Amino acid sequence: MNSSAGSGGEMEVDSNKQEIFQRKRNAVLVNGVILNGPITDSKAGEKFVEDACKIIMEEVIQKAADVTEKVCEWQPPEKLKKLLDLEMRDTGEPHQRLLQLCQDIIRYSVKTNHPRFFNQLYAGIDYYSLVARFITEALNPSVYTYEVSPVFLLVEEAVLKRMIEFIGWKEGDGIFNPGGSVSNMYAMNLARYKYCPDIKEKGLSGLPRLVLFTSEECHYSMNKAASFLGIGTQNVYFITTDERGKMIPEELEKQVQRARKEGAAPFLVCATAGTTVLGAFDPLDKIADICEKHGLWLHVDASWGGSALISRQHRKLLHGIHRADSVAWNPHKMLMAGIQCCALLVKDNSDLLKKCYSAKASYLFQQDKFYDVSYDTGDKSIQCSRRPDAFKFWMMWKALGTTGLEERVNRALALARYLVDEIKKREGFQLLLEPEYANICFWYIPSSLRKMEEGPEFWEKLHQVAPVIKERMMKKGSMMIGYQPHRGKVNFFRQVVISPQVSREDMDFLLDEIDLLGRDL
Amino acid sequence: MNSSAGSGGEMEVDSNKQEIFQRKRNAVLVNGVILNGPITDSKAGEKFVEDACKIIMEEVIQKAADVTEKVCEWQPPEKLKKLLDLEMRDTGEPHQRLLQLCQDIIRYSVKTNHPRFFNQLYAGIDYYSLVARFITEALNPSVYTYEVSPVFLLVEEAVLKRMIEFIGWKEGDGIFNPGGSVSNMYAMNLARYKYCPDIKEKGLSGLPRLVLFTSEECHYSMNKAASFLGIGTQNVYFITTDERGKMIPEELEKQVQRARKEGAAPFLVCATAGTTVLGAFDPLDKIADICEKHGLWLHVDASWGGSALISRQHRKLLHGIHRADSVAWNPHKMLMAGIQCCALLVKDNSDLLKKCYSAKASYLFQQDKFYDVSYDTGDKSIQCSRRPDAFKFWMMWKALGTTGLEERVNRALALARYLVDEIKKREGFQLLLEPEYANICFWYIPSSLRKMEEGPEFWEKLHQVAPVIKERMMKKGSMMIGYQPHRGKVNFFRQVVISPQVSREDMDFLLDEIDLLGRDL
Repeated sequence: MNSSAGSGGEMEVDSNKQEIFQRKRNAVLVNGVILNGPITDSKAGEKFVEDACKIIMEEVIQKAADVTEKVCEWQPPEKLKKLLDLEMRDTGEPHQRLLQLCQDIIRYSVKTNHPRFFNQLYAGIDYYSLVARFITEALNPSVYTYEVSPVFLLVEEAVLKRMIEFIGWKEGDGIFNPGGSVSNMYAMNLARYKYCPDIKEKGLSGLPRLVLFTSEECHYSMNKAASFLGIGTQNVYFITTDERGKMIPEELEKQVQRARKEGAAPFLVCATAGTTVLGAFDPLDKIADICEKHGLWLHVDASWGGSALISRQHRKLLHGIHRADSVAWNPHKMLMAGIQCCALLVKDNSDLLKKCYSAKASYLFQQDKFYDVSYDTGDKSIQCSRRPDAFKFWMMWKALGTTGLEERVNRALALARYLVDEIKKREGFQLLLEPEYANICFWYIPSSLRKMEEGPEFWEKLHQVAPVIKERMMKKGSMMIGYQPHRGKVNFFRQVVISPQVSREDMDFLLDEIDLLGRDL
Repeated sequence: MNSSAGSGGEMEVDSNKQEIFQRKRNAVLVNGVILNGPITDSKAGEKFVEDACKIIMEEVIQKAADVTEKVCEWQPPEKLKKLLDLEMRDTGEPHQRLLQLCQDIIRYSVKTNHPRFFNQLYAGIDYYSLVARFITEALNPSVYTYEVSPVFLLVEEAVLKRMIEFIGWKEGDGIFNPGGSVSNMYAMNLARYKYCPDIKEKGLSGLPRLVLFTSEECHYSMNKAASFLGIGTQNVYFITTDERGKMIPEELEKQVQRARKEGAAPFLVCATAGTTVLGAFDPLDKIADICEKHGLWLHVDASWGGSALISRQHRKLLHGIHRADSVAWNPHKMLMAGIQCCALLVKDNSDLLKKCYSAKASYLFQQDKFYDVSYDTGDKSIQCSRRPDAFKFWMMWKALGTTGLEERVNRALALARYLVDEIKKREGFQLLLEPEYANICFWYIPSSLRKMEEGPEFWEKLHQVAPVIKERMMKKGSMMIGYQPHRGKVNFFRQVVISPQVSREDMDFLLDEIDLLGRDL
């Protein structure tokens, strides 16, 4: 074939392109674009990836175990904008400049895998899940059809099966999805579909008011889900909890009856196994009794607490979970599989997920494929493209074994126990409540307040202590721990222990450091 | 401090642990767990990551540009289960075994970044976004508060700002989220909130039937969203399209009037810019006129077509998009930012996203923080933990510049044009329609059918051709291209051109290979 311009459009060739064009034999030009050969410089690209990986290894991975590194290099927003060169320009930057940018991005990011990052319900570094995540990013799969994601679909199936075993169901189904909040939405919609399959097609208009029940201590995603799904936040009936943050079953019973009297349609109870702030576990067995009695779907939000199922010592916290209809469980939290790694698990095995969610797109889920299309599970999802989040959990599980995962949970809870004992011993520290799990909620009381009576002035002053200590620790970069007011209690610290890189020494440091930062207040 | 057991529980020490215990000075034991020092062997972990990265570099990244490699190593599900050791056991596997597993995972996965992977609306490898994704995985951030994700929140803000400029809005807001389907859900809920803010609290019960409009060629996520949000799939009114797959504005007008007559409440039109199968662009300007006239929210699902906005040559495809109220745009498709990278963009600048989605969790969004909490944008999201997907787009944009992104779009569309011309020239290939974008839909007609009259028997036989060719190409591993039946048309191939690693030679190969695999049919 001789040089030719495509028929598609005019030839707009600038002099540089013209030159390349002249040099190339058999060049094909369409709309001013030379189409012969790839335009990417693969060798340069590969070199860039190698150089960047070296930086990642040195600046993130190797430093993850080093307590002498800062947890964060705090900068206020306006200053950080100036420090980073955020602007996207017409022309690209050279590799050296980009590598410098990578350094800066890392430098000013919070090191969530630092042994003294205690700020959220995730922390630490797991080398095996990290490798799985690197593989995922390099392969760039989307999990909807076996054709495109054979390995990752089988891995997801295998992981779901084991998680279902740990819940204690004989069989079941499930799907990995982008977060505990989304898992809770899935469950809410599934319960609604089971309650009235017509809603899928007809919607909620003209139906009685659907009502669901959850505890006062539930995750805020319940409200988000109720509003997103068109149920409305007013139709989330919050059940009173006891002093430890557990749903009171008798109160649930009363509220179900109240909803019935109002002419509303109760359809779902969302219990929580491991609440966000206090780490409380609802009494699942008693709640299951009530659900059975009233024919309500029982969903357990075990996003945080689910990982205790892996521990023979601690799985009793979730006693009764096998009676749930659905469970949300995030291995990216205590098990450290990396954000995000979240499964919704469903006891029903009659393809309920598929019935509820399918839209039967013919361009993706062709029925005349040459393999068993029951492996094309994408139509169970609210997403189209979906990440293979099960894979990172699988790799970690393969590497550590169930015993290794169990040790992780046991150790985190033992460290929590140690910290509780230390708090009890130390002057100026006061527990909010005896914890059930890895959330340790406590006040630090500076010496100026220790002799004060616990009246309004005391609480008002104490309320201001945690934010100041937090500011000081952020600016120093020594550690990160969260605080919040909660249900009438003034600001207190919530310490969360997760990572196996954390040791008893870090617990001691935590208390010493809070005292150091706050003793003058 | 002397050796001590915590007060929390009984001492259960096996002999191995007892030994470590004896050796350690000041050991602290709680519930049978030794708490001194970290339990992770960081050095071994780092070595494992290094070894695995070497495999990823050699087996995935370096092979991504090599057309002599197979696109896939096909195995049927049951056989692949046997080839892979999927079972998770009590005991972990040694590093050498894990590295072998990594090799196998890669071997049997589809190489979506192979130059001859044409199966989906994404393909190829971008070295810069890949580095950003590696950094993300290593740092493991969650984007909700500035405190935890200072860099990634600023990056998201900067990227959204530029995307908004390309849409042509003076100002706006937005959020990166897990996929085009989820983006469409966001928009649908936002439009509903704007229509009637009470729905957030009260839900849909007792309200008139809400109706939305979209074309027959829209993505299947419209149905998923309508069902998930409690609107109901029956209340999605599908508008007839013309022969090129574009929504007919006059039909939209009629359907809006029909809905009004039925006493329903029209609230939203979802136009599509780049349909999934045909790559059609709805006439946005005319649709915007109708939306304005009837006071309807205009959402544009530009998940696939949005990237054309970057090209001065091709942005006319989306003429009128600046009049939309919201836009979904996935840079992980044609721009290759890696799955997932999807933004929902909103014209409103009165904090509508926050009003619609906020749940004001006090443990996360404390108002007494020491910095400007307007940077804590997590409450705009339906998720709690959220990945920093904007970052990979940003890194790519920094590296390539706007010009480089533009070149990517121009080249893909020029290659598409070249392929169209080749299809027209070659015997046995027949275009379905003249494409507007990078979707080239065509039939391959084996010689046995070329003389047959285009009656029912012809179409029935032709319908069976593409699945057989697909099976053969999968088993050979030479390339991957999708097929589907569509709106009365029998199975045809849909070729999608994206990656800059793809060249004119690959287009020629595609047609040669289909002919080679199918000429005996």
